[in-house]
Amino acid sequence: MGKLAPRKTAGVLGGMGPQATVDFMQEVIRLTGARRDQDHVRMLVDCNPAVPDRQAALRGEGGDVAACLAQMARGLQAAGAEFLVMPCNTAHVFADSIAAAVPIPLINIIDATVAAVRRECPDARSVGLLATTGCINAGVYQRALASDGFGVVVPADSAVLMDLIFRIKSGDVGAETRAATAAVAQQLVAAGADVLIAGCTEIPLVLGAGDVPVPLISSTDVLARQTIEYAFNLQPGESS
Amino acid sequence: MGKLAPRKTAGVLGGMGPQATVDFMQEVIRLTGARRDQDHVRMLVDCNPAVPDRQAALRGEGGDVAACLAQMARGLQAAGAEFLVMPCNTAHVFADSIAAAVPIPLINIIDATVAAVRRECPDARSVGLLATTGCINAGVYQRALASDGFGVVVPADSAVLMDLIFRIKSGDVGAETRAATAAVAQQLVAAGADVLIAGCTEIPLVLGAGDVPVPLISSTDVLARQTIEYAFNLQPGESS
Repeated sequence: MGKLAPRKTAGVLGGMGPQATVDFMQEVIRLTGARRDQDHVRMLVDCNPAVPDRQAALRGEGGDVAACLAQMARGLQAAGAEFLVMPCNTAHVFADSIAAAVPIPLINIIDATVAAVRRECPDARSVGLLATTGCINAGVYQRALASDGFGVVVPADSAVLMDLIFRIKSGDVGAETRAATAAVAQQLVAAGADVLIAGCTEIPLVLGAGDVPVPLISSTDVLARQTIEYAFNLQPGESS
Repeated sequence: MGKLAPRKTAGVLGGMGPQATVDFMQEVIRLTGARRDQDHVRMLVDCNPAVPDRQAALRGEGGDVAACLAQMARGLQAAGAEFLVMPCNTAHVFADSIAAAVPIPLINIIDATVAAVRRECPDARSVGLLATTGCINAGVYQRALASDGFGVVVPADSAVLMDLIFRIKSGDVGAETRAATAAVAQQLVAAGADVLIAGCTEIPLVLGAGDVPVPLISSTDVLARQTIEYAFNLQPGESS
């Protein structure tokens, strides 16, 4: 066995949705840029479809998301995870329950994404937020952005984007879904956004940097970079 | 929480290589064809770069692959896996060590792939095998195919394909690698193969059914279908 560079094992709270989890893993692998199997990050992944619907839970309906995520976090830690990541923005409304369940850190996708906006677009005035209805209503991005002095624009009708996100989750990533998602993004730009956050991990499956006229910060991409940096003990930006 | 259809949790012995693991998960998700997050298969994945080099181990050099895989299997079972899959053909030379380590079943990719040849190409006489040098030298596919009455053709110089597989593992899935892999496949057809097995999970990353003039059975695809069938308690072929 070749000598492995010291690195920490990532635990991935996944399945929200499964395709977004795979997209996240893909980005970690691609950005690691390893030349052989042995140079990659170890990822322990719980791709769990049994996490109750986050949107329903945030409306006060449905199952106990916090308890489910806490259980998954404990399982990943028991299996050897040294830190946790969760490629789902909406589920971060329940981040405190995860932090309370395990002594290992959770890299918060929302904090990391807002930090990326600050680093990459320090002169931005108004940030356009592409996220689920539950995530928008919970205000987690708005609070983090406001405390950094950024204005925030959200979709005029969040139900339109929410419907698109459920379509992506159902496997529909075709031209019509892409165009409709780009149109929502365009509305945010028209409303003054000079940078956009893909603040739902389904969004990058249908929207790329070339589809919008302003910088697009992908929360999936940001989380993948942070995962690599934390695993290999690098400085922020060193994985780029 | 919506009522979940009863299903078994898959444990995935992964990281051999990481990209092939993600490709396998992608196929499971795609072939499940679920319309919402909650209808997918639960996968507990250990994407572990610390598995020693399988080729070196099969030459009698390097680390203890069997012990590492046995440890991963125990970890996955402890985390809740009810059956195991391993999207790496070569590592199946060590399948007995996994079976001895845990009481839950391992769906054997080699047995499953040979069964798929039998089912989909019952009239085939000669099967062309695209696999690593270690896998070919261990004879696992040849024995399984011979016991079903199939002839087997292997590459004249396995080092050529082995070099291509290491290139794919390094992230090189470009046109040159694709063409060179297709050329090896073509040599097997010229040598009489009337069906080909992509018997290394890196191969489907660069070779598709359209690239060869005979049926191509992807071991990744076969394992993904078997995973779904086992998880949902379906009959063979029902996931198609």
